[in-house]
This record gives sequence, C-alpha cells and structure tokens, in this order.
Amino acid sequence: MSRLTASYQVYGKAGSFEKKAEGIALGLTIGSWTDLPLLEQEQLKKHKGYVVSVEEFPQSPHPLKPDAIKAHIKVSYPSANFSADLPAILTTVFGKLSLDGEVRLLDLDFEEGLLKQFPGPRFGIDGIRGLLDVHGRPLVMSIFKGVIGRDIDYLTAQLRQQALGGVDLVKDDEILFDNPLTPFEQRITAAKQVLHEVYSETGHRTLYAVNLSGRTSQLRDKARKARELGADALLFNVHAYGLDVLQELAEDDEIALPLMAHPAFSGAFTSSPFYGVAAPLALGKLTRYAGADFSLFPSPYGSVAMEKTAALALGEQLTNESLLKPAFPVPSAGIHPGLVPLLINDFGIDSIINAGGGVHGHPDGAAGGGKAFRQAVDAVLQNQTLENASEQQPELKTALELWG
Amino acid sequence: MSRLTASYQVYGKAGSFEKKAEGIALGLTIGSWTDLPLLEQEQLKKHKGYVVSVEEFPQSPHPLKPDAIKAHIKVSYPSANFSADLPAILTTVFGKLSLDGEVRLLDLDFEEGLLKQFPGPRFGIDGIRGLLDVHGRPLVMSIFKGVIGRDIDYLTAQLRQQALGGVDLVKDDEILFDNPLTPFEQRITAAKQVLHEVYSETGHRTLYAVNLSGRTSQLRDKARKARELGADALLFNVHAYGLDVLQELAEDDEIALPLMAHPAFSGAFTSSPFYGVAAPLALGKLTRYAGADFSLFPSPYGSVAMEKTAALALGEQLTNESLLKPAFPVPSAGIHPGLVPLLINDFGIDSIINAGGGVHGHPDGAAGGGKAFRQAVDAVLQNQTLENASEQQPELKTALELWG
Repeated sequence: MSRLTASYQVYGKAGSFEKKAEGIALGLTIGSWTDLPLLEQEQLKKHKGYVVSVEEFPQSPHPLKPDAIKAHIKVSYPSANFSADLPAILTTVFGKLSLDGEVRLLDLDFEEGLLKQFPGPRFGIDGIRGLLDVHGRPLVMSIFKGVIGRDIDYLTAQLRQQALGGVDLVKDDEILFDNPLTPFEQRITAAKQVLHEVYSETGHRTLYAVNLSGRTSQLRDKARKARELGADALLFNVHAYGLDVLQELAEDDEIALPLMAHPAFSGAFTSSPFYGVAAPLALGKLTRYAGADFSLFPSPYGSVAMEKTAALALGEQLTNESLLKPAFPVPSAGIHPGLVPLLINDFGIDSIINAGGGVHGHPDGAAGGGKAFRQAVDAVLQNQTLENASEQQPELKTALELWG
Repeated sequence: MSRLTASYQVYGKAGSFEKKAEGIALGLTIGSWTDLPLLEQEQLKKHKGYVVSVEEFPQSPHPLKPDAIKAHIKVSYPSANFSADLPAILTTVFGKLSLDGEVRLLDLDFEEGLLKQFPGPRFGIDGIRGLLDVHGRPLVMSIFKGVIGRDIDYLTAQLRQQALGGVDLVKDDEILFDNPLTPFEQRITAAKQVLHEVYSETGHRTLYAVNLSGRTSQLRDKARKARELGADALLFNVHAYGLDVLQELAEDDEIALPLMAHPAFSGAFTSSPFYGVAAPLALGKLTRYAGADFSLFPSPYGSVAMEKTAALALGEQLTNESLLKPAFPVPSAGIHPGLVPLLINDFGIDSIINAGGGVHGHPDGAAGGGKAFRQAVDAVLQNQTLENASEQQPELKTALELWG
C-alpha cells in the first residue's frame, strides 16, 4: 500500500513541534494510539499516520511573535485512508488542519502506487510541440485584450493580428465567459477560420485556447462539443472550480484537447506566507497531476509578481522527472520583449513566453508585438543581446525603446 | 440588468486607494475607458465596472509596513459580464486580483436579479426542524470519532450510543471516505436501521449525515442512490470540490436531501488577515447561496478557533433576511457542555451545538455526553445556570466537573 507524505510549515516555540506533528499524524488518521488495546493497535496499524521529520529554523523567527520560530514538519499518511482523488486527499492532509492557525501546506509526495491514479497531462510538452511542429525554442503566447462587450468581428480581427505576429498560441481572456456577443461555439468556429486563413497566407500555425466556462456538470458536454467543432485547446479557471473537475476533463477520451490551467482565484490560497498552499504545489505539481498541459502563473517580473524562488520551484514542479508527462510553465503578467532573456534563463526552452499588453501595446499593433517577441526569442537562442539583434529587427527595436 | 458589488480590503499609502480602485473597476471589466472613442464608450457602458466607495482607516496601519494603512474599497460589476455561476463570479471579482498582493475579498452584494439565479438551502432551518419535529431550541449534533479502519459494527455501535444520548444529528467524520470496511451505501442502510431501533425504543429521532465523497461527476448518482436508500442528509467537503459542485447537488430534485457543508480546506483561503476571502462570505453567504442547509465553522471557543467577530458575522450571513432560506450555523471544534450558554448567546436558538470529544469523552460514554448537552440546552432555555441545573442532571454535573 502506498503512502502520501505532506510537508507543512508551522510557527511555534522551539521544541514544541514534535508534539504538534504527532498530533497531526494521529488526529488526521486514527485519532488515538497509545491508549488503544494491543489488538486494536494491530488492526489500525495500517491506517496510522506517522511523523517523518521535524526541522526547526531558529534563524527564521515569526515577524510578529518574538518567541515563535519557523519549522517544517513532514507527516506520512497511508493511502488506505482516502479514495484516490484530490478532494479526499486535500481533506485528509489539509482539511480541518487548514483552519488550525498558522499552518501552510508546502508539498505532497505521492508514492508511485498513488501517483499512478492520476492522469497527468494528456499532451504534455512534447505533445503540444508536435501539434505546432515547433521544437527547440520557447513558445510565444498572447492574450485577447479588452474583449468584454465586443462582438465576434472585433475578436477575430484581434486574433488575426496576433496570429500574423507569429505567436504560437492565443488564449481567451479568462474573464470572457459564454455571452451573446461572442458565444463559446461561435468563438471556436470563427477563430478556426481566421487561423486557417493566416496559415494559408503565411504558413504559420497558431492555436487558440477558448475559455471553457459555465456550470460544472455542463463542462464535459461543452468540451466535447468544442472538440467536435475543431477547437485547438481549452482554457480553464480550474481554481474557481476545483482540481478534480480539471482532472475529469483531462481523463475524458472524447474531449482529448490540450488543457490550459489559469491561476484565477488561486492567490486566495497561495499568497500568504503563513497560510494556505504553496504555489509550486497548487499551481505546479497538483495542476500537472490533475492533467493540465499548461499552467499559467505570475512571473517574478511583472506588476502582479510571484516571489522568484516560488516561481522557479513552480516551473520545476511542472517539468521535473515523473511518471507523468511534463506541462508547460507559462510565467505571465507584465511581460514585454525585454524580459525574454530573463524568462528563458529562469524557465528554460520548454516554457512559454506569454504577454497581453506587451503584444497589444506595441506601436505597430499586435502583429508587431508578436514579431518583437519572436525576434527576442530568436536572439536569445542565438546568444545575441537583444540590443544587437534589434538592429536588424525593427519590431524588437521599437519594443525595447518603449519598454526597455 | 443587475449588478454585483465586491468589497475588498487592501493596504497601501494614504491617498493611493482611489487609483487602485479605478484600476480594478476597469481592469476586471472592459480594460480601458478614457482613451476610447465616444461611440465605443456608448457600446461598452453597460459592461463597465465602477468604484462605489473608498474608505481609509488611518488608525489601522499595516503591522509590518509603517507607511501603509488599511482601506476598504467597493467595486460594482455588471452581471452582463459573467454567466450566473460562482466560478465565473469568483474569476471576475477575485481571479487575477487574488494574485495581486495584499488584497482580501470581504463581501459580495448580489442584486436581486442575480441572487435569484441561486438556489439557497432546499430545506433551510424550518425545513430541518420539520424533519426532526424539534422547535424552539438549538439542535444538538455529534460526530463519529476514530472510525478510520473500523468496521460497520463499530460504527453502528457508536451511532447507537450517540442517538441514545438524545442528539438530533450525527455526522460522519469528514475524513471517512468510501472504503471497504464501511462502504457508503452500507453506512446509510446500517445507520438507518440503528436509528430506527433507537426511535422505537425511545421515541427520539436522530438524523445521520453520511459523507458524500469520490469523483466529482459521480457525486450526483451517489447522492441519488443515497436518497433511494433512505439517507437522512449528506455531509459534503464543499471547499475541496468547489462551490458550484455543492450548488448542483442542491438543485437536483432527485437528490433533495439536506446538505451539510464542512469547512475542510477552507482555512487555506480564509485564515490570513491579508489575503483570501473573508470567512463570513466564503462559509456564510456563498455556502448558503449555493444551497447548504448547514454550514460548519470553527466556534470562537475551541482549540481550533475562529476570531469571534468573524464567527458572529458568519452566523449572521447564514441566517439574515434574504430571498433565500436561512441555513443552520454550526459552530464547531472543542465544544463541551459548559460552552452551551456562550454558544446560544452568540448564535441564538436557530443554531446547532456540535461536539465530538465533548460527547465521546464523557465519563458515561457518548450517550451520557449527548444527555449532558441536551440538559445544558434546556437549562439555558429555562434561564437556569448550568450549575443549578446540574444538581438534578447527573450527566451535566459530570461534564461540568470534567470540562468546567
């Protein structure tokens, strides 16, 4: 029987953590141990949680409580205690515990038998590269902008400009839901036509990720319909629904579309340094396990920024060696071409450069913005500085002049 | 067209909040305004967010940033911008914003047209009282304890003792999932038989809330099956699934069972004073709107405690005047009979006294524990002190001696 090890960050007095850890290991499994008769201990042994490790950090005092320091504790849970689904797992390891003061869930280590119950990405990085036939460079993605209240002609015109700029992917704005002006199905078919036209004209292929939204039980049929209509990929606000909902979309062979996980709402439980769930676990490991092919998160550089260590660890959780396929890290928010060298340095070739304002705000329009990003990527891969490269690349030059 | 007003808590420099609020109102709706041509302004007007109010609290400085103070800002969003479901609403009002530094979602005010899209509790407080035929006093609930790894005989014996103590409801442990020793369906049928026996013997009716768990798409069929088997109520770890999943269970006429929302995992996004969602909104208003008949939350008194102002506001959100029925507040964790006067004073007659250890830990067993709680409730309603009442009530006397 496999086990699951949870790592927590807690604060308290030095020397107090062993007892706290024991309380978690028993309290979240069989409740009590030492006062049980031997026969019952024998019967319950395989359901008992135990403390794996306790590590104190005396050099990390609590910023507001002078007598408290930070500690990491690891507790191992038997998978016999829960069904192999994320709601049961989260309820076990961070159910009532999430309400018990300053405790943060840092990581979950799934043993192989348990990990095998999760699908991971259907396409993964290689699969997405295969769809685009783009290898050896980061992909470039752009986002629709200011599309609420606009009609389908406005959207397709914006899509066309983005595709002409040479971006590999365009995603819906996550706050564009099903609506009378640009209904879900019409967005798919209209986008498909535009992107086919651009491909005919330029030979460049762009994929469009449409926002899958609405009531939970209707998502499956909407996604299957999207597939029938020839959708390229689905954007999904997984953290406003639940990780298990994403997983069911990923497991459905009649959907079988690339899934792009948006981090909307996730800041509610990842942002505090003291509470909630660490972003590398929530937006990295678990989002990958549940089946996202892409996971968006704030880059360390934009206006909405994630702390750099966390962002790097998040990228690592999406791509490290595992039974499950890797997913594309998509560091986002406030990205302009001048940041491309940093992003490639941080997240590697197997990542996605994603921009909204940095594409649309380009003085030559979205087409110019896309070109500037592609030029920046090429420059980095050719070990050129952006400054040097921009001498032959007018769009990149313009972008650097504007954003630095 | 109706609107939705979101209240946020933010920190920053005095005088900086108007600009921040404007940024939210535009950034989370149409993106830009003043630079749009008049014709487009006309077209987009009905999709524009606007700032309702900005209130600074100079007397509430940030504990770690001496130049920052607290402010509350309210932003109004048109419901034309989103579909009438909670994932779309949360993504709109707290999607990317949740990732944007120290910002906390305090409240959401639904105009009537929007509110009508939500079911609220199917039974509500009156409906649950009708099922039990108990009026004019708080209900008493107890929780199974230490049931992981135990068989159905162990469970039913424990249930019988609890019912004999006169509790009105018994709920599953939220970490008891579907498992070979005590499968979901067998728990329902075995509990039904035991509770029927107790009713035959004593005339006292107890309802059992079984934990509805497993994969999201299977919940509906499991819940319908539970209904067929005569289940009394369903416990549901809503925050490990998603509020919309609860809502779909509540709306299903073929389920039509009382729904008890457990707060497991909710601490991840309610506990920080700076980030996430205020508990009265998450566990109160939204859980009620989505259709819970009961909402559990940490009482202000136990070891796992919620700050008293928040706990009271939460109870208020579950029960205040609304188009939707009220739901039972269930302040929980660390409750013993000595706390009953405080709980009734805080949450009123229309609340539930819920205990685990305070029932099972009674020297006369769970039956004695249940009796002690019922005696404490009766004493309060008769304006007796617990001390006085306990002179005629041996179980209460024992409980007070043990827990104070």
